[in-house]
Amino acid sequence: MKLFIDKLIKKVDDKNSHICVGLDPHLDLLPSFLINEVTEDTENIDAEVISKVIFKFNKIIIDRISDIAVAVKPQIAFYELHGKWGIDVLFKTIKYAQQKDLLVILDAKRNDIGSTAQAYAESYFGFANEKKDQSLYESSLTKSITADAITINPYLGSDGIRPFLKKKSKGAFALVRTSNKSAREFQDVKLENGKTIYQKMGALVTDWGQEVIGENGYSNLGAVIGATYPEELKLLRKEMPSSYFLLPGYGFQGGGAADIIAGFKEDNKGALINSSRGIIFAYCKGEGSGQFNEKEFGSAARKAALQMKNEINEVLRNR
Amino acid sequence: MKLFIDKLIKKVDDKNSHICVGLDPHLDLLPSFLINEVTEDTENIDAEVISKVIFKFNKIIIDRISDIAVAVKPQIAFYELHGKWGIDVLFKTIKYAQQKDLLVILDAKRNDIGSTAQAYAESYFGFANEKKDQSLYESSLTKSITADAITINPYLGSDGIRPFLKKKSKGAFALVRTSNKSAREFQDVKLENGKTIYQKMGALVTDWGQEVIGENGYSNLGAVIGATYPEELKLLRKEMPSSYFLLPGYGFQGGGAADIIAGFKEDNKGALINSSRGIIFAYCKGEGSGQFNEKEFGSAARKAALQMKNEINEVLRNR
Repeated sequence: MKLFIDKLIKKVDDKNSHICVGLDPHLDLLPSFLINEVTEDTENIDAEVISKVIFKFNKIIIDRISDIAVAVKPQIAFYELHGKWGIDVLFKTIKYAQQKDLLVILDAKRNDIGSTAQAYAESYFGFANEKKDQSLYESSLTKSITADAITINPYLGSDGIRPFLKKKSKGAFALVRTSNKSAREFQDVKLENGKTIYQKMGALVTDWGQEVIGENGYSNLGAVIGATYPEELKLLRKEMPSSYFLLPGYGFQGGGAADIIAGFKEDNKGALINSSRGIIFAYCKGEGSGQFNEKEFGSAARKAALQMKNEINEVLRNR
Repeated sequence: MKLFIDKLIKKVDDKNSHICVGLDPHLDLLPSFLINEVTEDTENIDAEVISKVIFKFNKIIIDRISDIAVAVKPQIAFYELHGKWGIDVLFKTIKYAQQKDLLVILDAKRNDIGSTAQAYAESYFGFANEKKDQSLYESSLTKSITADAITINPYLGSDGIRPFLKKKSKGAFALVRTSNKSAREFQDVKLENGKTIYQKMGALVTDWGQEVIGENGYSNLGAVIGATYPEELKLLRKEMPSSYFLLPGYGFQGGGAADIIAGFKEDNKGALINSSRGIIFAYCKGEGSGQFNEKEFGSAARKAALQMKNEINEVLRNR
């Protein structure tokens, strides 16, 4: 069976693309006309109706970017917000994206220990086939829809990580250096060896990932590194040679093509660049937004995704 | 409006108890007779049936420990495992526990930045009432069931924490020193000032919590400190005077009453001690398990909870 990371690299090659599209359905940015397409009773909008809107929105986005992007990254917080209806639509979205030739990286930043970390892994990757002595309950459960990879928070150490590395077909991206301003408060603190906390985390993630290295030399355990900190990115690229990086923060949060180039290795691999609002809400956000009305959100997203793909490929060609 | 932390302390006083019961419905430990009580078709057990079993199980546990414990702590991973059905039962459990005079601390260890952290906070604490300019979607959402507090992972810094502190009636417990063995790999690394990473995190959490100090001198932002590391606990108790501690790891993970005493301040407050499997699965786990059959799981849980409450109170009396 192919490792997750090798499936990812194959898609990068096949599509000649390094982009990932974040499916973060912000309530205040969803096109309002979609309500009329899912219900006639527009006076009573509840979590069920909103979740239907989100699925309709996601499907159109996926249809329009599936040949441009390598993966989609649903941010689970925006689905949890709608309780059981939101979770239902999250799984439907995962399935739909996979049918359209996209990998799905679930942005969940899960973290816990032992049997609880295992329960999270089973929630999104399915039950381990090799499990023996299944209880009556366990043996009855099947997971027909699973994500391809998940983001995790590694603060708790290796026994919180290992459950996510058990299935070779699945991958994980561990937070190392996040894209937000206040990341500095903790992650940049200096250790007694002169390095920073995030460098220590990078070293641990590299180390833990050695168990699951694929045919391209990269590990199933990747790292999340904010696209908004080019200097830190450069440093970590050197220190984490076998880690594929997932770089959020492109576009809306301020990272540009020149900023993220340091995330790539000499093989022009090693970095998957994510944009969320800058693509899915291009109809109302960002530079070209004036050209589109809300009914054209799919076309706006396609244009923004193409532009992002081309910008990155051009910087890579000219490096 | 009373702060979360003051509501917690009032319950500690009223019930003369410092215990929290973890509602972690491990599939391999749930009593099998419950299946027959929720379905006649025992050949086809799916996530919906299992979720019904979990709710039935939780209600009996809650009924039997509601006068002994201050709070329950559902571990959300064991509900996410069952998709939309699990999430539905999680919210039903929260509501049921609150009706039975228990506070609910959702063990979710959520973490993200900016608008995503806000979405998590809204998922479990409800929408902020003061929100202006609500979009059509937002104005239609109400949350009738919300938790009283949540656990969070503070790796991303303050802008990942603040959304959880906006509502004075809600609290958060940030991971500082976790109870697992591999916690040492990262959390114990020394900084250039000679302190450890977890001490730095403790200092940040104390600092962030100053915005929301209640009438008893404790903050709405508490800390998770593993009960399995008494030395670290003693140190952090000194360095985090305004933080209420949530101590997991009692019982099953090895922490005992003598180990956790260092978590209390001189006012005999400041520590809420959690046990999960040691109580809810006392019928088949731990010392007294031989006395009970699976149909008596509620009585076994009550006995274990009473014993834990009394052990802790006795150590506090004799300190």
